[in-house]
Amino acid sequence: MADRPFVSVTTDFGAGYTGICVGVIARIAPEARVLVLSDGVTRYAIVEAAMLLRQALPYLPVGIHLAVVDPGVGTARKPIAVRTGRGDLLVGPDNGLLMPAAEVLGDVAEARLLANPELRLPEVSHTFHGRDVFAPAAGHLANGADLAGFGPTVAPTALQLPAPVVGEAELTATVLYADDFGSLVLAAHPADLHKALGPLAYGTGLIVAGESVRWADTYGAVARGEPLLYVDSSGWLALAVNQGSAAERFGLVAGSTVTLQRGR
Amino acid sequence: MADRPFVSVTTDFGAGYTGICVGVIARIAPEARVLVLSDGVTRYAIVEAAMLLRQALPYLPVGIHLAVVDPGVGTARKPIAVRTGRGDLLVGPDNGLLMPAAEVLGDVAEARLLANPELRLPEVSHTFHGRDVFAPAAGHLANGADLAGFGPTVAPTALQLPAPVVGEAELTATVLYADDFGSLVLAAHPADLHKALGPLAYGTGLIVAGESVRWADTYGAVARGEPLLYVDSSGWLALAVNQGSAAERFGLVAGSTVTLQRGR
Amino acid sequence: MADRPFVSVTTDFGAGYTGICVGVIARIAPEARVLVLSDGVTRYAIVEAAMLLRQALPYLPVGIHLAVVDPGVGTARKPIAVRTGRGDLLVGPDNGLLMPAAEVLGDVAEARLLANPELRLPEVSHTFHGRDVFAPAAGHLANGADLAGFGPTVAPTALQLPAPVVGEAELTATVLYADDFGSLVLAAHPADLHKALGPLAYGTGLIVAGESVRWADTYGAVARGEPLLYVDSSGWLALAVNQGSAAERFGLVAGSTVTLQRGR
Repeated sequence: MADRPFVSVTTDFGAGYTGICVGVIARIAPEARVLVLSDGVTRYAIVEAAMLLRQALPYLPVGIHLAVVDPGVGTARKPIAVRTGRGDLLVGPDNGLLMPAAEVLGDVAEARLLANPELRLPEVSHTFHGRDVFAPAAGHLANGADLAGFGPTVAPTALQLPAPVVGEAELTATVLYADDFGSLVLAAHPADLHKALGPLAYGTGLIVAGESVRWADTYGAVARGEPLLYVDSSGWLALAVNQGSAAERFGLVAGSTVTLQRGR
Repeated sequence: MADRPFVSVTTDFGAGYTGICVGVIARIAPEARVLVLSDGVTRYAIVEAAMLLRQALPYLPVGIHLAVVDPGVGTARKPIAVRTGRGDLLVGPDNGLLMPAAEVLGDVAEARLLANPELRLPEVSHTFHGRDVFAPAAGHLANGADLAGFGPTVAPTALQLPAPVVGEAELTATVLYADDFGSLVLAAHPADLHKALGPLAYGTGLIVAGESVRWADTYGAVARGEPLLYVDSSGWLALAVNQGSAAERFGLVAGSTVTLQRGR
Repeated sequence: MADRPFVSVTTDFGAGYTGICVGVIARIAPEARVLVLSDGVTRYAIVEAAMLLRQALPYLPVGIHLAVVDPGVGTARKPIAVRTGRGDLLVGPDNGLLMPAAEVLGDVAEARLLANPELRLPEVSHTFHGRDVFAPAAGHLANGADLAGFGPTVAPTALQLPAPVVGEAELTATVLYADDFGSLVLAAHPADLHKALGPLAYGTGLIVAGESVRWADTYGAVARGEPLLYVDSSGWLALAVNQGSAAERFGLVAGSTVTLQRGR
């Protein structure tokens, strides 16, 4: 780590509880530069947070990345830290949250259980491991603590993403999450679409979830209020409405299934 | 203060107005490390903010803690700064907001009116004392300004919290606030519950606000969507729904009264 | 720029996408102090963001101010950077967003197109120029890059604000935006009001949007829940409800027209 280690924080906690975690890091590692990447992940939405981390972390400095979306807090799920090939240290619950990001950061080089009580707060509550277990781990790692000192190695749990189904002249995909603009990010890539529907020039009309949708390269390529299918900034297919919300327009949520066909 | 003083900021302002306050601090005290603990306190909710400060500040570095939830801005209520036994400096309106935190930080060692015009911005508006009075005070304190230079000593106003009522086989308590997960934090401690209902093993069924609720140590101890009564991370009794919102489920808000009994 | 340049960031992106932009800046300019002024501007609300920047930037340190509210991302609208008379560098799309702030910071001293591919990320997406074009520009400017190296000079597009109409014993003004408290900020100044209605003492009753409203210096000058017209902290006329939301109470939104008269 450099003189001033970089720490990012991602939670579904909202502002106050996230601020407490940042405070814990600031006490342990006063020199750390801390960025709250997001305190506003949809509650308990592990997939949404995992996708944000995968999209964001390659653009952030190499550093310690704390992420807590943890519906199983206080149960048997394991707290872990993962060292990536790029040299980042990812800290969070072992519920798959960290793994898509680890994959794009050079894969898992080492993973450890956060078991050492000396690297937690003196008292550990049942309901706020972000404060009592994860933030202290991030702080100590920012101070240069050796990952091996936290506990035994573990094999982290993978995150299962729903695979797209390439059918006869149609593609079926699952909504991974709605982003902050209400755009619906789908678990499918342009290659899947081309496999199902053949090559598509921008401007081609499609039928998506029963509605006419333009295949376009950016929002402004369709009129205000009109829907489009595009490749989002992390490479997924996504459904948007120019200056509007696709989540509201289509009434779809994370986990919904969407069928894409050529327009008539 | 250390080379790089620590400043936290808590408001009900939302992002933009809070950002302006941080900017004022950054101009006056360029070396300060500033953490926005929360810019999202429920509007005008002095008790909620006071409880957040009391919960959070012990976990943050000793420093300057600016808090502004100030429905009386521009009226006769006093702007103050309080030095705690731990050495923190709390800055905000004298409406009780700062006092629960001061209590857990070693109590009030000194309290002063923010009266010195040289330690405010040159022009003071009627409606934005966060920017014009409180943030400048925090900035100057971060720079090491002497608290005595701000104005005369004052006796700060205490915050009145509603006491729980221990009845015959029932406890009645007031909702202090709903946290960011929709959990309802009650103005009562486990000792009050035990006094009213006798010793309780985790797993015992209770009747809370007329509904069956499990007494549990963490969310995951009950099924998804089921309610639980637990001890929250700052020691209060609290009513939650595993992976859901107790505020929505029970239709209760800050100030509501709740009765807790043993289940049949 | 000083040893540790100051960078502010204002977007309508929400937390995660804004965090990515801050991460890009942190990678390019590790020494920068970065303040997220707001990540919560109303989507696509160029006027609201422009007014926030104009209100806020004079209170912030001289520095680099990145602002992205960009409904035209990926279309022909130009990415620009503007040097102000005060010495700030404003970075964002050329849709008028930056100009009201530039006016109050000593006007535009120089404006350049962000055209140099070496000062962008290696790959530029169609939909996230905040990450790929604007944040890198802010980072390089924080590192002291010469504005002239970004591209040719441009004449930035002005922002058109709707002028108030001074009528016979009435003033008509447009709602610029609702602030985070639901207060409705009007495109008119106290001088316009006095021109239309004559001199007004605080306490005078007015008719605003058909309702009785008190002309007051601060919220607490009227009873809780009562409306008031006041001069907001950036000098505009504004309509508020003491401890409530004028936006909800009056059902008005950005772009609505409001008529102000003396009460009977």
